[in-house]
Amino acid sequence: MNSDLKTLLTGVRDGTVSVDDALLQLKMAPFADIGYAKVDLHRKTRQGAAEVIYGAGKTPAQIVGILDQMCAAGQKTVLITRLSPESAAAVRAVCPLDYRPEARAALFGPMPDPTGIGTVVVATGGTSDLPVAEEAALTAEVHGSRVVRLYDVGVSGLHRLLAHLDELMSASVVIAIAGMEGALASVIGGLVDCPVIAVPTSVGYGASFGGLSALLSMLNACAAGISVVNIDNGFGAGFLASRINHMEAKK
Amino acid sequence: MNSDLKTLLTGVRDGTVSVDDALLQLKMAPFADIGYAKVDLHRKTRQGAAEVIYGAGKTPAQIVGILDQMCAAGQKTVLITRLSPESAAAVRAVCPLDYRPEARAALFGPMPDPTGIGTVVVATGGTSDLPVAEEAALTAEVHGSRVVRLYDVGVSGLHRLLAHLDELMSASVVIAIAGMEGALASVIGGLVDCPVIAVPTSVGYGASFGGLSALLSMLNACAAGISVVNIDNGFGAGFLASRINHMEAKK
Amino acid sequence: MNSDLKTLLTGVRDGTVSVDDALLQLKMAPFADIGYAKVDLHRKTRQGAAEVIYGAGKTPAQIVGILDQMCAAGQKTVLITRLSPESAAAVRAVCPLDYRPEARAALFGPMPDPTGIGTVVVATGGTSDLPVAEEAALTAEVHGSRVVRLYDVGVSGLHRLLAHLDELMSASVVIAIAGMEGALASVIGGLVDCPVIAVPTSVGYGASFGGLSALLSMLNACAAGISVVNIDNGFGAGFLASRINHMEAKK
Amino acid sequence: MNSDLKTLLTGVRDGTVSVDDALLQLKMAPFADIGYAKVDLHRKTRQGAAEVIYGAGKTPAQIVGILDQMCAAGQKTVLITRLSPESAAAVRAVCPLDYRPEARAALFGPMPDPTGIGTVVVATGGTSDLPVAEEAALTAEVHGSRVVRLYDVGVSGLHRLLAHLDELMSASVVIAIAGMEGALASVIGGLVDCPVIAVPTSVGYGASFGGLSALLSMLNACAAGISVVNIDNGFGAGFLASRINHMEAKK
Amino acid sequence: MNSDLKTLLTGVRDGTVSVDDALLQLKMAPFADIGYAKVDLHRKTRQGAAEVIYGAGKTPAQIVGILDQMCAAGQKTVLITRLSPESAAAVRAVCPLDYRPEARAALFGPMPDPTGIGTVVVATGGTSDLPVAEEAALTAEVHGSRVVRLYDVGVSGLHRLLAHLDELMSASVVIAIAGMEGALASVIGGLVDCPVIAVPTSVGYGASFGGLSALLSMLNACAAGISVVNIDNGFGAGFLASRINHMEAKK
Amino acid sequence: MNSDLKTLLTGVRDGTVSVDDALLQLKMAPFADIGYAKVDLHRKTRQGAAEVIYGAGKTPAQIVGILDQMCAAGQKTVLITRLSPESAAAVRAVCPLDYRPEARAALFGPMPDPTGIGTVVVATGGTSDLPVAEEAALTAEVHGSRVVRLYDVGVSGLHRLLAHLDELMSASVVIAIAGMEGALASVIGGLVDCPVIAVPTSVGYGASFGGLSALLSMLNACAAGISVVNIDNGFGAGFLASRINHMEAKK
Amino acid sequence: MNSDLKTLLTGVRDGTVSVDDALLQLKMAPFADIGYAKVDLHRKTRQGAAEVIYGAGKTPAQIVGILDQMCAAGQKTVLITRLSPESAAAVRAVCPLDYRPEARAALFGPMPDPTGIGTVVVATGGTSDLPVAEEAALTAEVHGSRVVRLYDVGVSGLHRLLAHLDELMSASVVIAIAGMEGALASVIGGLVDCPVIAVPTSVGYGASFGGLSALLSMLNACAAGISVVNIDNGFGAGFLASRINHMEAKK
Amino acid sequence: MNSDLKTLLTGVRDGTVSVDDALLQLKMAPFADIGYAKVDLHRKTRQGAAEVIYGAGKTPAQIVGILDQMCAAGQKTVLITRLSPESAAAVRAVCPLDYRPEARAALFGPMPDPTGIGTVVVATGGTSDLPVAEEAALTAEVHGSRVVRLYDVGVSGLHRLLAHLDELMSASVVIAIAGMEGALASVIGGLVDCPVIAVPTSVGYGASFGGLSALLSMLNACAAGISVVNIDNGFGAGFLASRINHMEAKK
Repeated sequence: MNSDLKTLLTGVRDGTVSVDDALLQLKMAPFADIGYAKVDLHRKTRQGAAEVIYGAGKTPAQIVGILDQMCAAGQKTVLITRLSPESAAAVRAVCPLDYRPEARAALFGPMPDPTGIGTVVVATGGTSDLPVAEEAALTAEVHGSRVVRLYDVGVSGLHRLLAHLDELMSASVVIAIAGMEGALASVIGGLVDCPVIAVPTSVGYGASFGGLSALLSMLNACAAGISVVNIDNGFGAGFLASRINHMEAKK
Repeated sequence: MNSDLKTLLTGVRDGTVSVDDALLQLKMAPFADIGYAKVDLHRKTRQGAAEVIYGAGKTPAQIVGILDQMCAAGQKTVLITRLSPESAAAVRAVCPLDYRPEARAALFGPMPDPTGIGTVVVATGGTSDLPVAEEAALTAEVHGSRVVRLYDVGVSGLHRLLAHLDELMSASVVIAIAGMEGALASVIGGLVDCPVIAVPTSVGYGASFGGLSALLSMLNACAAGISVVNIDNGFGAGFLASRINHMEAKK
Repeated sequence: MNSDLKTLLTGVRDGTVSVDDALLQLKMAPFADIGYAKVDLHRKTRQGAAEVIYGAGKTPAQIVGILDQMCAAGQKTVLITRLSPESAAAVRAVCPLDYRPEARAALFGPMPDPTGIGTVVVATGGTSDLPVAEEAALTAEVHGSRVVRLYDVGVSGLHRLLAHLDELMSASVVIAIAGMEGALASVIGGLVDCPVIAVPTSVGYGASFGGLSALLSMLNACAAGISVVNIDNGFGAGFLASRINHMEAKK
Repeated sequence: MNSDLKTLLTGVRDGTVSVDDALLQLKMAPFADIGYAKVDLHRKTRQGAAEVIYGAGKTPAQIVGILDQMCAAGQKTVLITRLSPESAAAVRAVCPLDYRPEARAALFGPMPDPTGIGTVVVATGGTSDLPVAEEAALTAEVHGSRVVRLYDVGVSGLHRLLAHLDELMSASVVIAIAGMEGALASVIGGLVDCPVIAVPTSVGYGASFGGLSALLSMLNACAAGISVVNIDNGFGAGFLASRINHMEAKK
Repeated sequence: MNSDLKTLLTGVRDGTVSVDDALLQLKMAPFADIGYAKVDLHRKTRQGAAEVIYGAGKTPAQIVGILDQMCAAGQKTVLITRLSPESAAAVRAVCPLDYRPEARAALFGPMPDPTGIGTVVVATGGTSDLPVAEEAALTAEVHGSRVVRLYDVGVSGLHRLLAHLDELMSASVVIAIAGMEGALASVIGGLVDCPVIAVPTSVGYGASFGGLSALLSMLNACAAGISVVNIDNGFGAGFLASRINHMEAKK
Repeated sequence: MNSDLKTLLTGVRDGTVSVDDALLQLKMAPFADIGYAKVDLHRKTRQGAAEVIYGAGKTPAQIVGILDQMCAAGQKTVLITRLSPESAAAVRAVCPLDYRPEARAALFGPMPDPTGIGTVVVATGGTSDLPVAEEAALTAEVHGSRVVRLYDVGVSGLHRLLAHLDELMSASVVIAIAGMEGALASVIGGLVDCPVIAVPTSVGYGASFGGLSALLSMLNACAAGISVVNIDNGFGAGFLASRINHMEAKK
Repeated sequence: MNSDLKTLLTGVRDGTVSVDDALLQLKMAPFADIGYAKVDLHRKTRQGAAEVIYGAGKTPAQIVGILDQMCAAGQKTVLITRLSPESAAAVRAVCPLDYRPEARAALFGPMPDPTGIGTVVVATGGTSDLPVAEEAALTAEVHGSRVVRLYDVGVSGLHRLLAHLDELMSASVVIAIAGMEGALASVIGGLVDCPVIAVPTSVGYGASFGGLSALLSMLNACAAGISVVNIDNGFGAGFLASRINHMEAKK
Repeated sequence: MNSDLKTLLTGVRDGTVSVDDALLQLKMAPFADIGYAKVDLHRKTRQGAAEVIYGAGKTPAQIVGILDQMCAAGQKTVLITRLSPESAAAVRAVCPLDYRPEARAALFGPMPDPTGIGTVVVATGGTSDLPVAEEAALTAEVHGSRVVRLYDVGVSGLHRLLAHLDELMSASVVIAIAGMEGALASVIGGLVDCPVIAVPTSVGYGASFGGLSALLSMLNACAAGISVVNIDNGFGAGFLASRINHMEAKK
């Protein structure tokens, strides 16, 4: 942003940009205002990464409108998260979508080829954590990461987790997803030496209090190298994992 | 209590007990009222078990008074928990005490010989959980259980725990003590096939919220066979563990 | 598990097991991976105990699939908990089930004969706690325990509870189930000398906060020998009670 | 107040009170403004009741100042609650006080003779609840009630409570004071047919959360006829109990 | 209960009651066990009071069954609370009911004539508190109290409350019902000199947190003479109010 | 109110108002009691402001009844908030309404011309906050304020907010509406020098806990000049903003 | 800020400002970096307003350092809040301070003459709220407002509040400060027609939970025109009140 | 670990390792048991990284003991966190330490040269967050990262943050540390395209609830690429940041 500012200021000095145009550009450039939303168009399309639409609370018509803006801006691949089957069907009537019900998400455009440092491992404590896990996995994939899924490897049956030590130890990032007591993040954090992103889920009942138990547990994880995202936030974890998986030296 | 009632009623019918005496006996028998406390004297001294005085909030004089009542009632061994070094010193000036600072507890009278089905394993996640662990261990010992201590075997270094599989798998009861994320109970619960008593501790900072994180985590433990006592309640865990360790067929 | 490891290592040394086979065995043996779940098959079928499927969030097809795996592994009796009548009907169309609507659970295969030290008493504070109580009772029964049910014996009508002192005092384990103020566990804990497992329920309104009131109350129970499981966790209580009821001397 | 208003209006109409005087009287009458406090002087001194000063956060000089105002207004007996021994000593240097350290309170002036319907029973679950209980008992006494104290009758030793059935059943009001699980209120509420005022205390540790556990438990008490005051609010309970104990037919 | 015990013991001594019969009587007398509930029949029908069935979670058939038991025991008037219109219709098909939809409650049998010291005033902060208020009012009425209803007199329009000073000041008990900020109890508590029972309601949104805001506010009410019942517990308030309204000198 | 009181008292003294009439007037004047509600009619209709009916929990018939009272009292414009489309349709069948579905509110009568010091800016963090924002904007408009809407200017895309510095810096009041992390209020508070009213919304999932996260965040806002209203309380914010926007010197 | 930007851009275009100087100016202008703090110097000194230093957690040396920077920048009056008597004494040894212990604050430089629309009324529920009230009052005064203090006018003695109706009704802003149940804000909000700023205080015990009770109560206040600041945030309330008290038409 | 296991198994097969030795090795190898702690020695000393001792709750003697073990195992640099000045002095009496009071931490051995992809930026919202920030910065430095400190750049003075856009945009990882409303993480997350680690601090008062407000705010941050660690956990953030800063392609 700062370098854009310098370019702009230089343009003003050189007379190639008028003062009012500069002010206008500062206001108008980075997004398209389509009434119900300001579509953000200023992010670089580095790494073949997809743009993302948060589908919850948007009508199919609004989603199509935002998709149009993005396509017009040259975006090849768009991920739509938190999309119900009904909304997906309505959007698909207008433009082609690859809907993934297990992730409650849809893909518009081609899946990019995987790049990055290594693989992102997505591990879950139980089978009920699957929707969050698939959202995380799909998000990492559309942002250019290869993903390995290790589902139902909760700590109450430690052998199931230990049987996958190879995959875990060769990951560049691990996303540890669990509800209930959320111990998976701690145990994985003690086994690997890469960053671990913990995702508490709202799976459970009683004293799980909608994911609070897993959230607190993960925040208190004794192993180093662990950080936490919001309850059920598979997208956030997948996005961050892929970002870390694409770390490269800044010149 | 019910059989006592039948005995009493039979005495009334047979004329060996008057109605007023019966009423009086119902009121007076099971405890000694010494003003500031009603000392409970009706528990059988089965299994060589010690009686227990909860020391917190009691003056040394009150503790000595209760000790006197118990000794007069024939109690051989008394455990005093939550006892500060200062109070211990004041009590010891009057009657002999074996004070254990690491458990914040004192033993009056001889330590009973271990009996029971097997051993009680007391495992902790970290070194800071030690006071709670020692309270639990000492409580189990004075109630007649052999205790094995496995300290600092938290799940963030899984190999430390796995190195003690032998002790864990041969326990009759395991007490799993941990603060912070409290994952120890879940992992142990998945490894053993005996009852596991989980004790959350107030060890930690920030989002551990005084033990709430570990408490919720343990209540949500996915492994079966786990139950939970109050935060920092080493006594309760040790007492229950020893009770389970002395289970025997009721005729 | 440790003894399995020694056997495996001995096999490797003796040349009867190759290194790669050993590694493979460590990974593959204890469970069957059927895609949506890793079916745990390594638990001994000691004590006539049933295996358990947590039915919530699983499709009838998934349940049938897991049942198949378990039967193939030689399991005689399977308990399915948290099973809606609709799911039960769908599963029953494929394989025989004994559905118990009051417990929201189903039994596949024969009910094992009761073994163990004594009886498990399941006591509830009110009639609304019945589904949790039946889940606990059925779980204890399929794990080989004789169960006595004492329902609606809440402490606000103490005579109802005291009328059952005989059953309570002859129990080997008592499961105390209550919502609202959860005082039942404390009162029973003061009457009996066997382990008491307290189950808070989400029954109530207002300041019961979904079972939080009963949970905190039970964790703070002043009587010794009480431990607590998650809110509404009838299965956990029944499983643990039966495990304690089958305690036996370890060599 | 309303009848005062009518008197005032009638005075205005009859010309015995000017309009401005009436307005002034509305503003000035019922209290004395001594700078740091507005001393309330309009309550009737019916029933020999004492006035009360909440001592916490007031300097000895302020307390003496308020005492002076009250005495000048004809008050015979004044209760000062939440008064530290140090403050009590400082006040006593100026005017005579009967300090009750176990209640953290002091009495100025004579204790009124007991009146009212019957007795107020103050029952506590444990010995640590004593300061709250004494505050409640003393408050009821200075408001003209006869008080019976039943301390350390918690529900974990039910026989201690049942031994006092006579006192409980003949009370006109029972104040049930307990920390930890707070079950005392429920059990007493099921035994008596008079109003029960429940006082949660901050006694306890861990999941008692400063009295929250007892508070929720008491609010959820299943027995009818129970209401609750703030944590540790012995004064509020004693005042209300005495008020109920002095109920009389309104003409 | 204690006097019953003495009668029983005397009977045993006199030989008019056998020991086994005495034990049996202790167990069987005070309630009728009809499978799904233990109907409490030992309360005296003093003061023309109605018995109460908590309708929530009971089937119409169960309600009819309990009604039958109560009628067989001689109960004239029965109040059924938390009763949906559908359930009421189903019960009414079998036995006559006076259903009050605004109170979500039904009356079986005649309304008793009002007795007691004075009137019970039921005041609410807003119109949305009406169902709780009507439950309280009806409960007080069926227990023999005359009730005055003051609805929608919240403190944000103080003149609405002050306009009813006459009714408030002549009440023997006031029930103050409010959601949101719950200030009504404090303000009324400062105006009257009779007991005030505060009922927080779950009315509101956002930071009212299901009644928590009003609950805490009422527990912290600065005026003396106030106590609190559970959120939305109109029944508990009406029952207690009527009990206080029937206070009479114990011999 | 006080000056009304003086007028009344003067009338009493002058004999133009009888004492009983004065008392009556105090009770009856300021509102109309229509059974289910006390319609408040004493507020001045200064500034062309509309009266407001809180529609939630009221039947269409009740709303029409209150509307009738208000019109009879001379009210020109009435705002009905929290009104569902179904209720709006039912009311519209009886009297003309301008229903605004995006604000869940309806306008009866003409929209007043804008007056006041300047403009009220309503800014939201995201598109999901729109219903709360429209309720706030409409409320400010019907109370006579000109409103500028800045939607979807959340802090995660700071340039969207900075592009509207002109509007923000020329506002007389800013209403900052945001769910999730609620940072919008802090950032705006640091940019402007007018009062900022922060409205947390219940938009979000997981650890947003129904708006609690945004609420706490806004209460802790480091910038000065910010205050907070209840979660989702668009009406309260709009009303207060317009009141501030109409501040004028008091003599 | 935006107009500064335009000036800067114009300077760049005109060649009077170089591009690098422009960038530098954007970074350096508005504050002085003195190592441990960035002193904000860009706020206009309109209205004779004081600058403010938040004293908590700053050493006397740091406070003197920041004071120096501010004086060098031409600031006449500086308010230092949350300043202990010890820190005040240490600062006063170096530069003159007017320390106000009751407000835990100090004034450097002259108190500005009051300006603004009208008076700011600071009202408290009890005497313990005084430190917060004095912080609010002093803050409003140093920002140029005339302040009227109404202390100890809590709603449990409504006449104390009503006696000050004149002051309340003529205020331009009211700051309502209360702990415990926090009802003062609601009642005042219903009496006045100016903005009310509610300040919950941490005064109280038990279920006041450090001010949470008052905070929730005030957020739920039913009267319109009320907004809330953080617990004990007297400064924030005083600052905002004075800002509102200086509202003027923007051209 | 898995590859170690294969090595071990191969050794067993080849006869170079006996079965019992293999079991022993599994148990003993990775840590040194020095009674009060199990010192973890199995982590590779890759990247010049320091080992870490969590100093809180350890005696100087215990710290020296652990230091000895680590040095004996070849560790060059050791970081001791949460170390009081008193403990630091006691340890320094025995072995040389570089104590950093502003970080509450000490360095034993040389500071490693910075390596890694780029710089770690540590940004704080206020000056009170400094201890947490210094702990994070020092941790990142001893693990081989170059660190840039940006303190006191909170969002309430946005220009202070924007003035450092250069440093922020060229970071490889940003650690955003803030108490109170925690908005810093969101705003930074919207400005940069590298991973952001958010650290809530317990700085604040009132409704900051010991860091809960900032924690929830950061978990709900709308910008992508943000994750959160425990309240005040500077060490965890610094460790993770440095780990991400050393990401490299896994073969």
